[in-house]
Amino acid sequence: MKVSITRKAHFTSGHRLYNPDFSDEENRRIFGPCSNPNGHGHNYVLEVTVTGELDPATGMIMNLKELKNIINEHIISRCDHKNFSVDVDFTRDIIPTAENLAKRIFEVLDSKLPDGTLQRIKLFETENNIAIAERGDG
Amino acid sequence: MKVSITRKAHFTSGHRLYNPDFSDEENRRIFGPCSNPNGHGHNYVLEVTVTGELDPATGMIMNLKELKNIINEHIISRCDHKNFSVDVDFTRDIIPTAENLAKRIFEVLDSKLPDGTLQRIKLFETENNIAIAERGDG
Amino acid sequence: MKVSITRKAHFTSGHRLYNPDFSDEENRRIFGPCSNPNGHGHNYVLEVTVTGELDPATGMIMNLKELKNIINEHIISRCDHKNFSVDVDFTRDIIPTAENLAKRIFEVLDSKLPDGTLQRIKLFETENNIAIAERGDG
Amino acid sequence: MKVSITRKAHFTSGHRLYNPDFSDEENRRIFGPCSNPNGHGHNYVLEVTVTGELDPATGMIMNLKELKNIINEHIISRCDHKNFSVDVDFTRDIIPTAENLAKRIFEVLDSKLPDGTLQRIKLFETENNIAIAERGDG
Amino acid sequence: MKVSITRKAHFTSGHRLYNPDFSDEENRRIFGPCSNPNGHGHNYVLEVTVTGELDPATGMIMNLKELKNIINEHIISRCDHKNFSVDVDFTRDIIPTAENLAKRIFEVLDSKLPDGTLQRIKLFETENNIAIAERGDG
Amino acid sequence: MKVSITRKAHFTSGHRLYNPDFSDEENRRIFGPCSNPNGHGHNYVLEVTVTGELDPATGMIMNLKELKNIINEHIISRCDHKNFSVDVDFTRDIIPTAENLAKRIFEVLDSKLPDGTLQRIKLFETENNIAIAERGDG
Repeated sequence: MKVSITRKAHFTSGHRLYNPDFSDEENRRIFGPCSNPNGHGHNYVLEVTVTGELDPATGMIMNLKELKNIINEHIISRCDHKNFSVDVDFTRDIIPTAENLAKRIFEVLDSKLPDGTLQRIKLFETENNIAIAERGDG
Repeated sequence: MKVSITRKAHFTSGHRLYNPDFSDEENRRIFGPCSNPNGHGHNYVLEVTVTGELDPATGMIMNLKELKNIINEHIISRCDHKNFSVDVDFTRDIIPTAENLAKRIFEVLDSKLPDGTLQRIKLFETENNIAIAERGDG
Repeated sequence: MKVSITRKAHFTSGHRLYNPDFSDEENRRIFGPCSNPNGHGHNYVLEVTVTGELDPATGMIMNLKELKNIINEHIISRCDHKNFSVDVDFTRDIIPTAENLAKRIFEVLDSKLPDGTLQRIKLFETENNIAIAERGDG
Repeated sequence: MKVSITRKAHFTSGHRLYNPDFSDEENRRIFGPCSNPNGHGHNYVLEVTVTGELDPATGMIMNLKELKNIINEHIISRCDHKNFSVDVDFTRDIIPTAENLAKRIFEVLDSKLPDGTLQRIKLFETENNIAIAERGDG
Repeated sequence: MKVSITRKAHFTSGHRLYNPDFSDEENRRIFGPCSNPNGHGHNYVLEVTVTGELDPATGMIMNLKELKNIINEHIISRCDHKNFSVDVDFTRDIIPTAENLAKRIFEVLDSKLPDGTLQRIKLFETENNIAIAERGDG
Repeated sequence: MKVSITRKAHFTSGHRLYNPDFSDEENRRIFGPCSNPNGHGHNYVLEVTVTGELDPATGMIMNLKELKNIINEHIISRCDHKNFSVDVDFTRDIIPTAENLAKRIFEVLDSKLPDGTLQRIKLFETENNIAIAERGDG
């Protein structure tokens, strides 16, 4: 049996999908209204799942308070009420689609969490658009 | 007995809370991270409630398809993937708090719906922040 | 201060919006795909709100178990997995729009609950289409 | 038009419905499993709605940060991870039904918020059991 | 790391669980009220998850607009406000349980999406009954 | 293709995180307010996922009514409105964290369901804290 825990967090950010190598018309065709110049944003919901051994003394895989602190320090405090293309160093160089953001958030958290414990990131851009980044062997 | 119907709609917009008459520090103190210059946004949820007589031939107060069309034409198409302070003519001159937006959306819809039928607007900025504008005699 | 309690219940029913006095084309124009002959249905969510005095001995306006039983006996057991236009005696003669159903459910429950306690019925046909029937003086 | 804002908050508490004036059997009949001696609890969701004039300089009825702080200081910090019948001074003397709790929470907040601004409290004990306390003239 | 995206869609359909090879009493025993002759239905929620390489020029695995169009064309437009046992060619010959529907929807979408990209279908018949069809090697 | 079904259930229980081998201060540091002596509790949501072959005569992997009965008999009736550390025999000897509870619930259900069919348990302690126990080879 494999046991894992998931912690959910919320943040609000500005994003614009735009590739400067594309013409305006191509940007419009590919990214639709997400390429509008004056920006919009989303209430993102982030789910972080870690796995590991259950410690019999605490009954925990990892203290959820600690997991919450890591998510807050490395993701929420850097993204919340920020613009992904201007303010956030780990997303400034990518097109901030849900799947690109999920990939980068996975990489950031994977480097901060105990080795190999991060299993999956789920990022809700809206209730209907969701990206998942998960460890390849999972 | 009073009967009414509610139609829910979704849109995504950019907003920034900022009053140019305030100092930067006052803006920061009053609006918090919502005053960040590079913008952010929300997935707004809008609930529109209308009341009236039930037409026995259709069983309807108002055709929900028609209500949906009015909401789409006058609110969604003007706000979705837009910035309230730049792109939306009916919110450009206000500070786009949830309550200010709800007030203006009520006014726009009230002028497009049959006289006196609009009862209430509920605008979810996030799951936790909600503004309501309703007819005073309600 | 007014105190009230709301109990939520779920049921699943078949409905078809169709007026035999209309031509097929009129039915199609007014009711859209809801007039399809082979039927469809919804997972309805019903919220029932009652008000009254708080009994100091029980801390209750009305025992929620009792309210639940009344809802089950008079609404759920008669509507769940049934077709409103064929199986349900109190809706067979109406066009089963959300607002017509809400009106009839209010009338049924109002006759079974202590006098004047029923305040409001909220009926979710889908997450986006909601009908409300409430006492006129509320 | 009346404009109001709602702020949602969450807390987790232990409760037991039990009246020492009743026999064990009466407690069981009236309160059901909620009278179990070893306690259980709920994830409560609280919605607080305030109304007032829109300040044109801020676009606000009341700063949501301030409303959040008042809810946190006077309700959440006193109830969260506490037992209503043992730990919480303003509920220790009542049977902690949802409606009794809603009434008391309304009274506490009403005394801390600007005069007459508190309009309504909504307390979700579970997704299906909800109590509402609202100003009588509303 | 594996990255995938999920798109959610909604439709409403009529279904009846009934096997003509069974006696009425067997149908009743096995399918319960789902075998009622006059039909009922559900608000189905469908989640479609696809995986693949992230295109650096677009930041996308697949354009969500394109995925949405495929789901609309091949599933929603054929099932919404239809009866699975009468109107829908790809479900007419099966008993429309959630798991049978999920299996068929997977097969339809798998044949329309780029080879091997469809990873998983999740079909919510109600909030409490969910079927999942996923690629065997996943 | 692998097909599975998920059934959701709800229960409400009391829990306290406390290890008698730790000092009070250690309990406080590790478990936070969850170690409060007077108890609190949660509205738990449980998702149970089983997999297997689709029976062509019924269109089912397992009758959802039967799955529901097994969950009710072996989990809900033993945990609902009970205290995990006092009343529930299969959790009395563990620290009732979400992940420990998920592990034990998996073990109980695995022993009651047809061999190898139980695939995954998901236990929501709150909307934000979720534990998952799943078959190791999945």
